[in-house]
Amino acid sequence: MNYRYKIIIEYLGTSFCGWQKQKNGISVQETIERAIYQFSGEMVMVYGSGRTDSGVHALGQVAHFDLSKQYIANKILSAINHFASPYPISILDCKEVPSDFHARFSAKKRHYYYRIINRSSKPIIELDRSLWVKQKLNIENMGKAAQVFIGTHDFSAFRASVCQAQSPIKTLEKITIEYDNNTEIKIFFSAISFLHHMVRNMVGALLKVGLDQWDENKILEVLNSKKRSLAATTAPASGLYLLKIEY
Amino acid sequence: MNYRYKIIIEYLGTSFCGWQKQKNGISVQETIERAIYQFSGEMVMVYGSGRTDSGVHALGQVAHFDLSKQYIANKILSAINHFASPYPISILDCKEVPSDFHARFSAKKRHYYYRIINRSSKPIIELDRSLWVKQKLNIENMGKAAQVFIGTHDFSAFRASVCQAQSPIKTLEKITIEYDNNTEIKIFFSAISFLHHMVRNMVGALLKVGLDQWDENKILEVLNSKKRSLAATTAPASGLYLLKIEY
Repeated sequence: MNYRYKIIIEYLGTSFCGWQKQKNGISVQETIERAIYQFSGEMVMVYGSGRTDSGVHALGQVAHFDLSKQYIANKILSAINHFASPYPISILDCKEVPSDFHARFSAKKRHYYYRIINRSSKPIIELDRSLWVKQKLNIENMGKAAQVFIGTHDFSAFRASVCQAQSPIKTLEKITIEYDNNTEIKIFFSAISFLHHMVRNMVGALLKVGLDQWDENKILEVLNSKKRSLAATTAPASGLYLLKIEY
Repeated sequence: MNYRYKIIIEYLGTSFCGWQKQKNGISVQETIERAIYQFSGEMVMVYGSGRTDSGVHALGQVAHFDLSKQYIANKILSAINHFASPYPISILDCKEVPSDFHARFSAKKRHYYYRIINRSSKPIIELDRSLWVKQKLNIENMGKAAQVFIGTHDFSAFRASVCQAQSPIKTLEKITIEYDNNTEIKIFFSAISFLHHMVRNMVGALLKVGLDQWDENKILEVLNSKKRSLAATTAPASGLYLLKIEY
């Protein structure tokens, strides 16, 4: 019999090749798998709620794994944090869960946000933790244009060419823009699931609107075209945070 | 004739030995001096509003320096940012100022804040940019106790032994505590000037209060004792930000 554990993970994506194991670079997934091996002696597979790209951060990534021995969940949390401590990873929570829980397939809603620092001078303290936009963004127009994405659409124009999802149809439940202290902009996205690069591609389009190069009609046109070639540049990974997964 | 320039600087203090030049490590001051030399050929002294210790950050440090040639201020800004770009320093503003302006002696008010992340799990993304406190802090009591520091006092008990100020008497104008999203605490300090380590030592005392080990009477007692030996541990540099200098 196996015991299944669910963990919530915060990580700084800057130095990782992303969530998933890859030949070049160190992934969050293998760092956690190694830490689990170091305390348990078991080489397990850690299943995430979804992948994040290199440079993308997480405040609440969720994953699960099985162990043949039962542990107090807090011991697992401490042990992974101990063995993963050279890496910018922090396990925030660990719970034993029923064996039918699956970090990816049981997820009911996914929340991300994209963080922009909008000021003339380089924000050195938040550099890898945001996107720096020098030109003043028109946030009101970005907010209006964001409404175009809400609802059920074929998001082919906002999908990475390598995306493995079976269908390009997704339902975006919410986009909200928060605007703090004159320089920091956060765009929040909620959906059951997203296509690969979908959030960063929507941000790329919203940036075009913020820079007065596009308007909401242009976004609608690109969305309806279903052609990636018409869309804007994918926004950099550094501004993207996986915020929370709901089950 | 010389031309005097005032710059406003943001820096991440983590990898610097502090503001001031030292034998061991790289300082913010020399990094800026080198960048000025690289574009102007002039080896000048850059005078800061005050020192910051190793690991302390700045969002609005101010400094001045003289050049024998007149430049458009924005060119100086771009040039320093260009040559200092391998370092976590960003010049936010540059202005030509009258020759009687002095970054340190003309300063009328100094503003700092100290940032605490108060949660059970390690905040990996903000690790070098805050102090992590695991135990739940009593913020209401910290706020009450902070009032003890306000006004003019002999701050000898909150002064580093190496402090070079002539008098230990300082006037603290304001301390306010901001409390965001359940985990982030910012304590703001304003005064004409501070003693060496004074903010971090006050934070050390307030942390004792937050942990229910001290109360406001104990802080008053330590303040009145004028003995550093009775005070709490100096709070770590990682949470301290030089916010703004007023002239």
